[in-house]
Amino acid sequence: MKTVAVRNIERTPIEIVDGLGELGVATVHEAQGRTGLLQPYMRPIYSGARIAGNAVTALVHPGDNWMMHVVAELIRPGDIVVVGLSAENTDGMFGDLLATSFMAQGARGLVIDAGVRDVKDLTEMGFPVWSKAISAKGTVKETVGAANVPVVVAGALVTPGDVIVADDDGVVVVPRKTAEQTLVAARSRTENEEEKRQKLGSGVLGLDLYGMRERLESEGLVYLDSLADLDHS
Amino acid sequence: MKTVAVRNIERTPIEIVDGLGELGVATVHEAQGRTGLLQPYMRPIYSGARIAGNAVTALVHPGDNWMMHVVAELIRPGDIVVVGLSAENTDGMFGDLLATSFMAQGARGLVIDAGVRDVKDLTEMGFPVWSKAISAKGTVKETVGAANVPVVVAGALVTPGDVIVADDDGVVVVPRKTAEQTLVAARSRTENEEEKRQKLGSGVLGLDLYGMRERLESEGLVYLDSLADLDHS
Amino acid sequence: MKTVAVRNIERTPIEIVDGLGELGVATVHEAQGRTGLLQPYMRPIYSGARIAGNAVTALVHPGDNWMMHVVAELIRPGDIVVVGLSAENTDGMFGDLLATSFMAQGARGLVIDAGVRDVKDLTEMGFPVWSKAISAKGTVKETVGAANVPVVVAGALVTPGDVIVADDDGVVVVPRKTAEQTLVAARSRTENEEEKRQKLGSGVLGLDLYGMRERLESEGLVYLDSLADLDHS
Amino acid sequence: MKTVAVRNIERTPIEIVDGLGELGVATVHEAQGRTGLLQPYMRPIYSGARIAGNAVTALVHPGDNWMMHVVAELIRPGDIVVVGLSAENTDGMFGDLLATSFMAQGARGLVIDAGVRDVKDLTEMGFPVWSKAISAKGTVKETVGAANVPVVVAGALVTPGDVIVADDDGVVVVPRKTAEQTLVAARSRTENEEEKRQKLGSGVLGLDLYGMRERLESEGLVYLDSLADLDHS
Amino acid sequence: MKTVAVRNIERTPIEIVDGLGELGVATVHEAQGRTGLLQPYMRPIYSGARIAGNAVTALVHPGDNWMMHVVAELIRPGDIVVVGLSAENTDGMFGDLLATSFMAQGARGLVIDAGVRDVKDLTEMGFPVWSKAISAKGTVKETVGAANVPVVVAGALVTPGDVIVADDDGVVVVPRKTAEQTLVAARSRTENEEEKRQKLGSGVLGLDLYGMRERLESEGLVYLDSLADLDHS
Amino acid sequence: MKTVAVRNIERTPIEIVDGLGELGVATVHEAQGRTGLLQPYMRPIYSGARIAGNAVTALVHPGDNWMMHVVAELIRPGDIVVVGLSAENTDGMFGDLLATSFMAQGARGLVIDAGVRDVKDLTEMGFPVWSKAISAKGTVKETVGAANVPVVVAGALVTPGDVIVADDDGVVVVPRKTAEQTLVAARSRTENEEEKRQKLGSGVLGLDLYGMRERLESEGLVYLDSLADLDHS
Repeated sequence: MKTVAVRNIERTPIEIVDGLGELGVATVHEAQGRTGLLQPYMRPIYSGARIAGNAVTALVHPGDNWMMHVVAELIRPGDIVVVGLSAENTDGMFGDLLATSFMAQGARGLVIDAGVRDVKDLTEMGFPVWSKAISAKGTVKETVGAANVPVVVAGALVTPGDVIVADDDGVVVVPRKTAEQTLVAARSRTENEEEKRQKLGSGVLGLDLYGMRERLESEGLVYLDSLADLDHS
Repeated sequence: MKTVAVRNIERTPIEIVDGLGELGVATVHEAQGRTGLLQPYMRPIYSGARIAGNAVTALVHPGDNWMMHVVAELIRPGDIVVVGLSAENTDGMFGDLLATSFMAQGARGLVIDAGVRDVKDLTEMGFPVWSKAISAKGTVKETVGAANVPVVVAGALVTPGDVIVADDDGVVVVPRKTAEQTLVAARSRTENEEEKRQKLGSGVLGLDLYGMRERLESEGLVYLDSLADLDHS
Repeated sequence: MKTVAVRNIERTPIEIVDGLGELGVATVHEAQGRTGLLQPYMRPIYSGARIAGNAVTALVHPGDNWMMHVVAELIRPGDIVVVGLSAENTDGMFGDLLATSFMAQGARGLVIDAGVRDVKDLTEMGFPVWSKAISAKGTVKETVGAANVPVVVAGALVTPGDVIVADDDGVVVVPRKTAEQTLVAARSRTENEEEKRQKLGSGVLGLDLYGMRERLESEGLVYLDSLADLDHS
Repeated sequence: MKTVAVRNIERTPIEIVDGLGELGVATVHEAQGRTGLLQPYMRPIYSGARIAGNAVTALVHPGDNWMMHVVAELIRPGDIVVVGLSAENTDGMFGDLLATSFMAQGARGLVIDAGVRDVKDLTEMGFPVWSKAISAKGTVKETVGAANVPVVVAGALVTPGDVIVADDDGVVVVPRKTAEQTLVAARSRTENEEEKRQKLGSGVLGLDLYGMRERLESEGLVYLDSLADLDHS
Repeated sequence: MKTVAVRNIERTPIEIVDGLGELGVATVHEAQGRTGLLQPYMRPIYSGARIAGNAVTALVHPGDNWMMHVVAELIRPGDIVVVGLSAENTDGMFGDLLATSFMAQGARGLVIDAGVRDVKDLTEMGFPVWSKAISAKGTVKETVGAANVPVVVAGALVTPGDVIVADDDGVVVVPRKTAEQTLVAARSRTENEEEKRQKLGSGVLGLDLYGMRERLESEGLVYLDSLADLDHS
Repeated sequence: MKTVAVRNIERTPIEIVDGLGELGVATVHEAQGRTGLLQPYMRPIYSGARIAGNAVTALVHPGDNWMMHVVAELIRPGDIVVVGLSAENTDGMFGDLLATSFMAQGARGLVIDAGVRDVKDLTEMGFPVWSKAISAKGTVKETVGAANVPVVVAGALVTPGDVIVADDDGVVVVPRKTAEQTLVAARSRTENEEEKRQKLGSGVLGLDLYGMRERLESEGLVYLDSLADLDHS
């Protein structure tokens, strides 16, 4: 790979970032046409956190976390560090010392397609991490990677300055160029959700609320009175 | 598959259901001869819940949760919705809106061989789910499946009206026809457990409590004084 | 395998054991040259526990937990039971009754390369377990294995009397012969960590704190002003 | 489980079995509405075999292949032995001696949700096996299971006397009661396949052959001239 | 996602494509700095094939292969079809009919982050496929995806017109813009390989051929006479 | 880890090695009490090879194959190189150049708990490899590991000079100290196998050949005439 670190990136305006963060991963993912979701093996080290931020990225090799220090310098307040790997790896590339540094630089959290350690400390510090694994396995600092270049992380392409939203449901990336329109679309999704929720909560069925019965029938759904009718259906 | 929905099913009497629920998954699983357990990748989205209910079932295709709305109408108070897939899938097929609907219909929980989302909301609502994955990945409503037919879920056959017991140890299915005798067997298992627990807690060894020493010897167990004897054994 | 149980093992002095336990898995693992870590699929059944103890071991066959009762007799206060399998298995080999017995004998916890059940009870009892799986699947008592012999557990060799340290980051084994020197090395690692933490927390970068800039450059890291420069780099 | 062996089962007529075998797994699976497929981790030990047969079944425990000898007596010429497990297991439960016995009884092959060994011998004998794993791990004969009862195998329910079809694409089960209608449906699927193949081979597009263009457009597909138009679409 | 199909893409000149194909995946991957490799779960359905081509891409949803027909029209001779998924899926999205169509349009092979079926037919046709799984599971044609847009496939970003090289070692993507320089770099790598091979084959050690001894010593490698010295080292 | 390389190891006499190799993995594994088997994810890169040799070992870090060159010098004719990893990794640590070197030094094959590449070349060279993965991912040469020390490989402990037997069924390790007695035990296992094979092949059931019927009955096996009797059993 090109062993470069990019100093300046275009970030998404923070009010758009924060707007997306309020809506959460599932809503944002739907609003951009069910794209941008990182694979579901990416799990938070503790539950309850919901964050959004501008992505600063690193691309690193298995067992080597040297670039994590390079990326620390590139963090601006409101950023989320996103780390891709050149090959599958579960080593614990991040711990409490790096977290202390990242927090001091203003990072809101970390998304890493590898392992993380010192999870008890990180939880007490309130520094949220979404990772592939928890592992105490230490790493070396021998091979240069890249920082602030586009990286593939858990099946999704993340370009520096894209918006990352992460919560208990997982992690989604929103491209910077379409972040504003995604925010608009996501907000409109939530508008009549409360109304739906109340109707469903009062016992109205989705079949009726969404008018599904006719299309289900036309697509072939047949109601039987009992299982005994199944053999003759 | 036959694209049918069965309206009426024979349920297990609720006092048997609740009796099994009190005993928990491990005890019930043992009581029916160590059968009926769903594979251990089925995990609760939050810990501490223990539920039992009559199974209402859905069989759905990857990436398509349309039948979840059909099954909502088939729920009766005390039921647990059980969803099997026609192929492996981790998409988030269930979220807070459907949970609101299922709760309004009286469902006690959900067991799904795929993904679930809005897990923070579901936790706050107190609607327990056992699933294969947590994923924000949305689904379509395009292909009809089946409802209230026998389904294979995480390696176990579930027929509508069977009893589902689920807790932190996993999920077990108890066939309706044998539910009562399983309850009797499970209760008798727990009767002298407290006595055993007290003896073991006071320092009595299982070797003596269960009289294992003789059979261990006859099956070939040899005691050595130290590891140094291992090479000459 | 040799179907033996070894009565007497050489244990690591308890003050060394406890010293290692205070430092935790990540520090101890680093201090012995990044070795001895069990694979990261070994996870605690509840978070927050940190234990250390002398290993007493069992080697068992899939679906058969008979040797767990043999090992109960070999436990001395301060021990941790370590269970290896002769083949991959996720059955729930350990539950609340065995835990009651192990606690009565003085065990501090269990590390098992298979499944565990009754996890809610174990959590309430405060008996920590690191396992490969949670599963209610019961086991038989038919085939003799071995106790207090060297076993491979989750990719690491554990000899009886080695020190086991386990916390939220995973499990590490420290050979008895090198336990004291590992403790010394681990303590020296933590000495100036607090100073580093304060500097990093005040905004000093690791790049400067550890003097990495020159070596990064000599290894080929190039800084670019913007992503636009990437194509010409 | 009920530790029973059922002597007499109703088999599917062999001409239906053989008819399904000629058509192969993919076609049969489609013909019964995309159901009955075992999970794709079930792979043949050698490529090129295609078999069909009546299922005789065994339900066994991890690490214990005793019931394989019980099922040997239940085999009739034209049968395929289908083995389910009470919990996940990869042990090598089947080798050349059992294969010799099964062949002598007339078995056409084996489908096992666990491991198999002696695969070189089995290949030379021409005894095809579909399994979850290849493993030399031996098993014991200690715990009784069941034979010729319904079993769940790799996510599918198999009842004795159902038809099993297996080839390089995997394994599908066809319920005995619907086997004839599935054969009719499967044959009708293949009738005009040759015509389609010739048209597609001559360069006709599926878009035109199946008349998809209009529906694609109505479902929202938009054609762009170049990637440069993507940002403005 | 944007439900678009892009008609015209810029392709890499075919002589560069073919040059890369001659060198194979491992060499090309090294030559571009160990980047661009798809994850190793992507395996060929038969061994021995080595292909290179321009990528035409599809992005599809789990269980739905409709866009495969859209992409058929976009194939030009020398292309390789590359299919990404919006979520994990192993369904058999491709079989002999589509292969007939793709071959007729000039495709050299398929790379798909899902399943494939009719593998015996595909092998006989000589149409090579690299996939995540082999599965007979059929798919629907209900939901529109995208064609000839950048897609993430098995952890790598593929832009239409990039070069795909695939052989028994896996699959690598070479960005169109850097394809020529990668070819030059890859060729220079192979130049003195034959000389190295002959020296190594004659018994010269890599330690001497590459002059590693001094650096190994400076990095801390110590030679011991025997294992007995290990405890005192 | 201790960064050492041990020059001299005690090997198992080659006639014992070759004797074990003739018998194959499954027989040898049984003969030593069903121990020593590497996990079944270790698969050969091509089928049909069966080798045995003295183990020379390397312990390496993820993504770094430097020690492979160190171990090359330690190979003696008849050896098999066995490589363990300090953490999970699938990188392609071995290719045709190293294979050329290993062959020149007299190695019979390689067993590596990571990835391998150039598999087509290796197949043509006839150099057999058992690995966890096939991957073109290249590695660096930056971090020193260890050579000819005991290593855990795929769940088994391998000490230099132990015997490795590998074939299509997997890989087994036989400790040097017990190799001779294991050979004797393994040979006695095969003695009357041919007789058993002929009896089973002539239609005699294992139930009768091994006299299992009585014990099956005493352990609870009940024969039913038909499935209809199951509900009343």
